[in-house]
Amino acid sequence: MVSQRALIVVSGTSCQEDALRRFRQPDDVIIAVDGGAHHCLRLGWRPHVVIGDFDSLSPEYLQQFEQEGVLLLRYPPEKDETDLELALQYAVQRGYRHIRILCALGGRVDQTLANLFLLGLPVLKNLDVRLEDGEVEAFLIDSEAEWQGVPGETVSLIPLFGVAQGIWTEGLRYPLRGETLYPERSRGISNEMVDHQARVRLSQGVLLCIHFHSDTGGS
Amino acid sequence: MVSQRALIVVSGTSCQEDALRRFRQPDDVIIAVDGGAHHCLRLGWRPHVVIGDFDSLSPEYLQQFEQEGVLLLRYPPEKDETDLELALQYAVQRGYRHIRILCALGGRVDQTLANLFLLGLPVLKNLDVRLEDGEVEAFLIDSEAEWQGVPGETVSLIPLFGVAQGIWTEGLRYPLRGETLYPERSRGISNEMVDHQARVRLSQGVLLCIHFHSDTGGS
Repeated sequence: MVSQRALIVVSGTSCQEDALRRFRQPDDVIIAVDGGAHHCLRLGWRPHVVIGDFDSLSPEYLQQFEQEGVLLLRYPPEKDETDLELALQYAVQRGYRHIRILCALGGRVDQTLANLFLLGLPVLKNLDVRLEDGEVEAFLIDSEAEWQGVPGETVSLIPLFGVAQGIWTEGLRYPLRGETLYPERSRGISNEMVDHQARVRLSQGVLLCIHFHSDTGGS
Repeated sequence: MVSQRALIVVSGTSCQEDALRRFRQPDDVIIAVDGGAHHCLRLGWRPHVVIGDFDSLSPEYLQQFEQEGVLLLRYPPEKDETDLELALQYAVQRGYRHIRILCALGGRVDQTLANLFLLGLPVLKNLDVRLEDGEVEAFLIDSEAEWQGVPGETVSLIPLFGVAQGIWTEGLRYPLRGETLYPERSRGISNEMVDHQARVRLSQGVLLCIHFHSDTGGS
């Protein structure tokens, strides 16, 4: 197992560069997913690995990466997995337990959904995996989770893959006490942190937690 | 039952005004969901009803709507449903069987998810309900569906609320033949129309179909 974090950089449009530069730690390993390599270049980050079918990357960039000794893992364009799924499999195989997926929101809505749903990949179970775009962090809760924040920040709890039952919350303005959330109802949307940390546990199902960092949540 | 369509206008950021003006038919009934009333004003549409907690609407607009005889249905801000859920319940109670939800994508990712998942509300079963923003149409398939398009357009099929089984497709570049799709795998993303219509049927589960209209899909 590897104690470093793997930062997987995707090509979504939601990518707060200043926040992500602050987010990066010196020993993070950078995995660019196809067009996510452009985000890396803008961020001034040299990726350690680039994964994908390379349909969004110019030959010049590819040549530059090759000269710099970046590992290029090229897959055929007609495949069953998206490039992010391949990158997640790669990170897990390499032993990373702490994985952050950057710039995976925004852009095409089907890809945003697919990126969020990939958090439920069986190989990621019991690993510490989050989406982060500088404004939002998103992660799954299948038993319990605790996270840090600032009072007033918006938090939404959305059941994925079916109902979520036996939900208890602490540190949220609208508490749940052993209740059930249904994916097709919008009840878990727009809760709010009332403390510097919040905690959720549940007995059945999976919740997607979407936490807006200060001053970036909506009304 | 009412043969007219109900157009429910939400406050998402993805809202192609020219396309939506062409989309509107003369006898459509317009239901604005809170901040969606701003989209209506920009589109030059007077809503028949405005529903919500009105937290995104200025007093001037509200007064103007009142003077014009618009029905204002005001709910308290602290409620279990989002404003769109209330608007859908209203439309169903009024007997509309053909409902189009406009401008419900873009903006906060939790609200986009909630808006899409609301398509699964039990009261909408067997009704003709779609999200439409001028670039994308999105709808659920729980037994079979057929839709029109143009060869080359991108189509994604995403299982919601669990696995989807026994899926058969016609008119798509990467056909499925009795197969299963898993929500946490990205296999159903970026299929493509090869004809002017496509058809999907499945034996179990629910698929979200996201269809990009010409020249608006991604790679």
